[in-house]
Amino acid sequence: MLETTIAAIGPLDEPAMAAARELHGRLTKPAGSLGALEELSVRLAGLAGNCPPPLPEPAAVAIFAGDHGVHAQGVTPWPQEVTAQMIGNFLAGGAVVNAFARQAGAAVTVVDVGVATPIPAAADDAVAADAAADRDAGGSGTLDSRAPRLVSANVRAGTRDLAVTAALTRDEARAAVETGIRVANDLVAAGAGILLTGDMGIGNTTPAAALIAAFTDADPAAATGRGTGVDDPTYRRKVEVVRTALDRHRPDPADPLGVLAAVGGLEHAALTGLILGAAAHRVPVLLDGVIAVSAALAAAAFAPDAVGAMVAGHRSAEPGATLALRRLGLVPLIDLGLRLGEGTGALLALPVVTGAVRVLHEVATFDSAGVAEK
Amino acid sequence: MLETTIAAIGPLDEPAMAAARELHGRLTKPAGSLGALEELSVRLAGLAGNCPPPLPEPAAVAIFAGDHGVHAQGVTPWPQEVTAQMIGNFLAGGAVVNAFARQAGAAVTVVDVGVATPIPAAADDAVAADAAADRDAGGSGTLDSRAPRLVSANVRAGTRDLAVTAALTRDEARAAVETGIRVANDLVAAGAGILLTGDMGIGNTTPAAALIAAFTDADPAAATGRGTGVDDPTYRRKVEVVRTALDRHRPDPADPLGVLAAVGGLEHAALTGLILGAAAHRVPVLLDGVIAVSAALAAAAFAPDAVGAMVAGHRSAEPGATLALRRLGLVPLIDLGLRLGEGTGALLALPVVTGAVRVLHEVATFDSAGVAEK
Repeated sequence: MLETTIAAIGPLDEPAMAAARELHGRLTKPAGSLGALEELSVRLAGLAGNCPPPLPEPAAVAIFAGDHGVHAQGVTPWPQEVTAQMIGNFLAGGAVVNAFARQAGAAVTVVDVGVATPIPAAADDAVAADAAADRDAGGSGTLDSRAPRLVSANVRAGTRDLAVTAALTRDEARAAVETGIRVANDLVAAGAGILLTGDMGIGNTTPAAALIAAFTDADPAAATGRGTGVDDPTYRRKVEVVRTALDRHRPDPADPLGVLAAVGGLEHAALTGLILGAAAHRVPVLLDGVIAVSAALAAAAFAPDAVGAMVAGHRSAEPGATLALRRLGLVPLIDLGLRLGEGTGALLALPVVTGAVRVLHEVATFDSAGVAEK
Repeated sequence: MLETTIAAIGPLDEPAMAAARELHGRLTKPAGSLGALEELSVRLAGLAGNCPPPLPEPAAVAIFAGDHGVHAQGVTPWPQEVTAQMIGNFLAGGAVVNAFARQAGAAVTVVDVGVATPIPAAADDAVAADAAADRDAGGSGTLDSRAPRLVSANVRAGTRDLAVTAALTRDEARAAVETGIRVANDLVAAGAGILLTGDMGIGNTTPAAALIAAFTDADPAAATGRGTGVDDPTYRRKVEVVRTALDRHRPDPADPLGVLAAVGGLEHAALTGLILGAAAHRVPVLLDGVIAVSAALAAAAFAPDAVGAMVAGHRSAEPGATLALRRLGLVPLIDLGLRLGEGTGALLALPVVTGAVRVLHEVATFDSAGVAEK
């Protein structure tokens, strides 16, 4: 499945991009006056192979959740159980990602790809209630923005400690990547016009930093940030853990599955798959923060043309995110110091993406509006 | 009316801000992880005097349109008639501001505060049809996001040439400011939860640059940009026009009405009034680009506490906008190189403002969600 997905990923369509540039020149606005939105809309025309490209609707955010053996190294002050507890919060609609998704009309799918502790029973009740309400409403509910959905696809109960051994076997990493591809396939089949990346995993900025250092050759100190806001001793320990892991495993950036297995996380690998799946369907994928861009580096290593499907939602406060975005050649739409994850930064950027495409659909030309040109 | 409006503007409410900070600390997210959105929501609590502050809904964008005597100096390649033609486009729903307003669910009010040429008849038809449809629907339509509305409040048919004489008399400047206050009063009375600034006026980046130079004491070359994208000779002429106007009028920044009269525009003065009106009602006002922030400097000169009601929507590509934002102490929410005006940058930022407030309304606490803290 990974290989056929990669084989389906191709370059942007140049004639559609040329048509979008030409249309922009005829719309009632000074040439270039929409700045980065114009280039974004041109790129999405190239992805769709059509001008105008379809409006990116409906939107679906997929939150991949996993735990991390490296938690044992004391890289975060949060208990590991918070990963499962936050899944309960997502399914009950109480997290920031839910508030933003309701506002944006985006459906929320939570994927347990590697949670280590039991997901709270209350969450199951909420899901059951949602599912019942959904059946009552007669819908499949897959893209219902009011009813978060849980997909159980646990590859293993958290990774191994990457400071000691490989986080995953190659087979486990592949299973997680293919879970992400499968989620992309399902969401696109249900009609999603854009996929948004989300993540949850206590400790997951440590493997993200290791992935970014591995793919960009950055020093661990430059790629590692404070995550949820760790203190100085924890930060120094975190940098040393990343350095130790890279020295021990010496991952080869030309072998992305090997990199994900050595120093990645199950949610990082699944996000890599989601991105590849979106690119194979020529559906845009709106990236959230540092976890997403670390997975995007792996996706680009599997298939360089996958970058054409990526839109950078925001610039995470994590320094590694900026390194990754620079390597991918992506400029983020929002830059407000967010460092929450979950998909929150991607959701904030969604109206900008929709607006960029909407201009090509709805704005009058100088000719049709009877407006003089300079 | 100007004096009573200024007298009604007061400081942010500290207890409401403290309550918002305290609430942020209990919500299910790491402290500070929403970056600039947290400070924004705290400020809006202070403006409302309540925590949580009301969601900024419904939204209303007011586009003030005017012409400029300085057009005669060749500061822009666009014919003056485009101001009136674009009003026709706004009323027919064909401009970028309309596309973004429909997406955001914001009502569009176009205010002719100083257009010099006739507004196309087709536009009148569109308005009449909208008004008739509105009557049929039984609503006042003031905040109907599907039906742009025209308010005729023409103070004079464009300003005088500020390079030669004062652009406006003090009475004319006051009439334009009070038009803006009246529009704010009307929109708030109709239920608007947030006001967005919009503008249309061929040549209006020249008076904006002069206003910014006057209020910030910046050199005209630093405050002046290329507007819609003028060539090098036009740009040099524009800088010299701004320098000549400031040398001739020597406007006193402590006398904002005098500054607006000497080197302003009718839409700039009206936007100053809109901002003051919003602040007096303690309703947030979301600023668009360089025209808006030049008016915001005048509003802050009238009433320093008005800054508490201002949210900077985006950073215009015009260099003067950055000088003005710095002086106002505002950090823009969006920074994508837009230089279109109309209210487009403010509309793109609206979901960020709404999202920031929504968090305080809808996100669960650690306690209520059963999530462990670090």
